[in-house]
Formats: sequence, structure tokens, C-alpha cells
Amino acid sequence: MARETKRELLEKGVALLLKHGYADLGLAGLLEEVGVPKGSFYHHFESKEDFALQAVDLYMEHVHAALDHCLHDQAVPPLARVERFFSLVSDSYRGEGYLGCLLGGLGLELSGVSETFRKKVEQCFNAIGKRLGACLDEAARRGELKPGTDTRALSELLVNCWEGAALRSRMRRSAAPLRQMLDFYLNAVRA
Amino acid sequence: MARETKRELLEKGVALLLKHGYADLGLAGLLEEVGVPKGSFYHHFESKEDFALQAVDLYMEHVHAALDHCLHDQAVPPLARVERFFSLVSDSYRGEGYLGCLLGGLGLELSGVSETFRKKVEQCFNAIGKRLGACLDEAARRGELKPGTDTRALSELLVNCWEGAALRSRMRRSAAPLRQMLDFYLNAVRA
Repeated sequence: MARETKRELLEKGVALLLKHGYADLGLAGLLEEVGVPKGSFYHHFESKEDFALQAVDLYMEHVHAALDHCLHDQAVPPLARVERFFSLVSDSYRGEGYLGCLLGGLGLELSGVSETFRKKVEQCFNAIGKRLGACLDEAARRGELKPGTDTRALSELLVNCWEGAALRSRMRRSAAPLRQMLDFYLNAVRA
Repeated sequence: MARETKRELLEKGVALLLKHGYADLGLAGLLEEVGVPKGSFYHHFESKEDFALQAVDLYMEHVHAALDHCLHDQAVPPLARVERFFSLVSDSYRGEGYLGCLLGGLGLELSGVSETFRKKVEQCFNAIGKRLGACLDEAARRGELKPGTDTRALSELLVNCWEGAALRSRMRRSAAPLRQMLDFYLNAVRA
């Protein structure tokens, strides 16, 4: 029961952080929505910062699940797996009203004042880049990429450009920047 | 004298907003640093929001000055002008300790809760994209781009990918993501 409450607080926290960012997130409103008293919050979390860091962990659980689902599918060629992952992410953005990516949002908001958040978000980007990089390695082995491609650099670049597209998608409340970026990227790297 | 104080508040405001973001920006600290009383602040600005919006205007003045400087230089081929603009921007990020772009920062932080900021930042991105697009049009006319290129889409994409690279550059406190993105982009569009 306590575990369910914690999970519910974090799921709601992800949604609220995505819309409001960190500083503007009101814990009172969160507790009211989930229907738990303040004491219960501090039973589960040391502080607002601890809560937001655990919300990032939950967000990453979802990201890794989507990566597992798409990148492990041996029936699909590697580049198409990468494309499918970003299509899934884009679908999930649509469900939220195109609010962009929580990692980019919290990263930009907090990395100037919190080394903890800066390092946390950088670790997340790095983890996503590594998994995409492994799939790009497979794409390279199968001849899907232009010869001589630096797959490590390419995977970093993909994460970064996606974050920029997600940012613009949030400004426009539209999927267009995401699709446009992905098409440009795939077209540029494809053999 | 009053105009100088206002300008100084805004210049300092740009620097503080870049590091702290909007919600974490303390007006008391800003006033102390510039050495003006609270009353003077409210003489120049209606509110913190008004101040931040005018700080964005000042930031855009700098961006347009850099665009003027680079894109109007007829002695340089168009694509190289675009490259030079982003080199200038990257140099300016270095001087600030790689804190990224104020537009992306405030855009991500505030666009979930403020339509005013969302529209303001979108207008800024749009204005930058249009100026880059005009230069890409010239590049296309001179045969510098792959034939059949949609220069409008390409200029939007450049702004968006740059914002993503700037975000990652802020996470890493490094120029590498910026250079990497620009090289990838130029390589992909060049004839």
C-alpha cells in the first residue's frame, strides 16, 4: 500500500514536473491530487530534491522499457528500431500535449544551480546514447550506415538533436519538429 | 542615468537568468549586485515577468547584432557565414562557462505555465530561423546546398538542433556538442 502511494506520487510528479518544472511545482497541490498527507510525503522522500531525482528515475524506467521494446526486436533492421523508439517517444509526447522531455526540462532549469541535477541528467542522456549507440553499431555491421561512421558520436548527436527538437515541439505544441529532425538525421546517416 | 541603470539591470538579469533560470532568480540579489533600491526596479519594470521579457529582448539584440555581423558579410560564402555566426555564439557560451542559450532555458522552464513566455520564445526562434533561412536561400542560389533543399525547413532544423546541442553543452560544460552538431549539419546539407 505504501509502495503504491509512493509510485502514485512519483507518476503524478513526473506529469507535474513536465508541465511546471521544478521550482514551480507545488507539493501541496501534488499531495492534494494524490490524496495523501504531508507526513506521508516525507515518509517516502527526504526532500523536494529527493522526490524530483526519484521522479527522474521513474521517467528513465519508462525510457528504458521503450528502448528494450524497440531495440531488442531482432525482426526489425537496426536503423528502423531506432526510428521506432523515437516514434514511440513522440506518441508519448502527444499524449501529454507536447510538453517535451523531462530530462531536458529539468536539466536546463537546474543545471546552473545544482551539480546533483546536472550530473544526474547527464548520466541519463549518456545511458540513452549508449543504448542507441549499440544499435547503431549493429546498423553499421549490417551496412545500413555510411562507411567510416563514428557510431558513438552519432548516437550522442541523435540524443542532443532530439532534445532540441523536443524543446521546439514544446514551444509549438506540435510533433513537426520531432519528425523533421528524425527524417533529416536518418537521411544523413543512411548508407 | 536612469536608462543606464535599466540597461545594467537587464544585462545582469540576462547573466543571472542564464545561470539560475526564472523561478530561482532572486530580485534582492540582483538589486544588491547592481546597487539600486527596490523602488528603482519597479520604476523600470512592472513585475518580475516584465523584467524577464525585457531581458529576452536584450538577449535578442545581441543575437541580431551577431547575425548582422556575420550574415551581411558579402565577402564570405553564405554557408561559411552561417558557420561563423554559430562560432561566435559558441565563443560567447564559452565566456559564460557554457550555460547554454537563454531562449531554450526560459522556453523550457516557463512554456508549460506561461503562454506569454511560450509565444515570446517561439517568436525569437522564428526570427532567428528566418534570418538563417534567407542566408541558406543565398547558399542554395550559389549552389552550395544539395539540390532540391527546403531551406525554410533546414533553417528551422538548424535552430532546433543547435538548441539541443546548447542544452547538452550546458550539461557537460563543454563546446564539444556544439561543434559536433554544426559539423554534422553542414556536412549533411552541403552540395
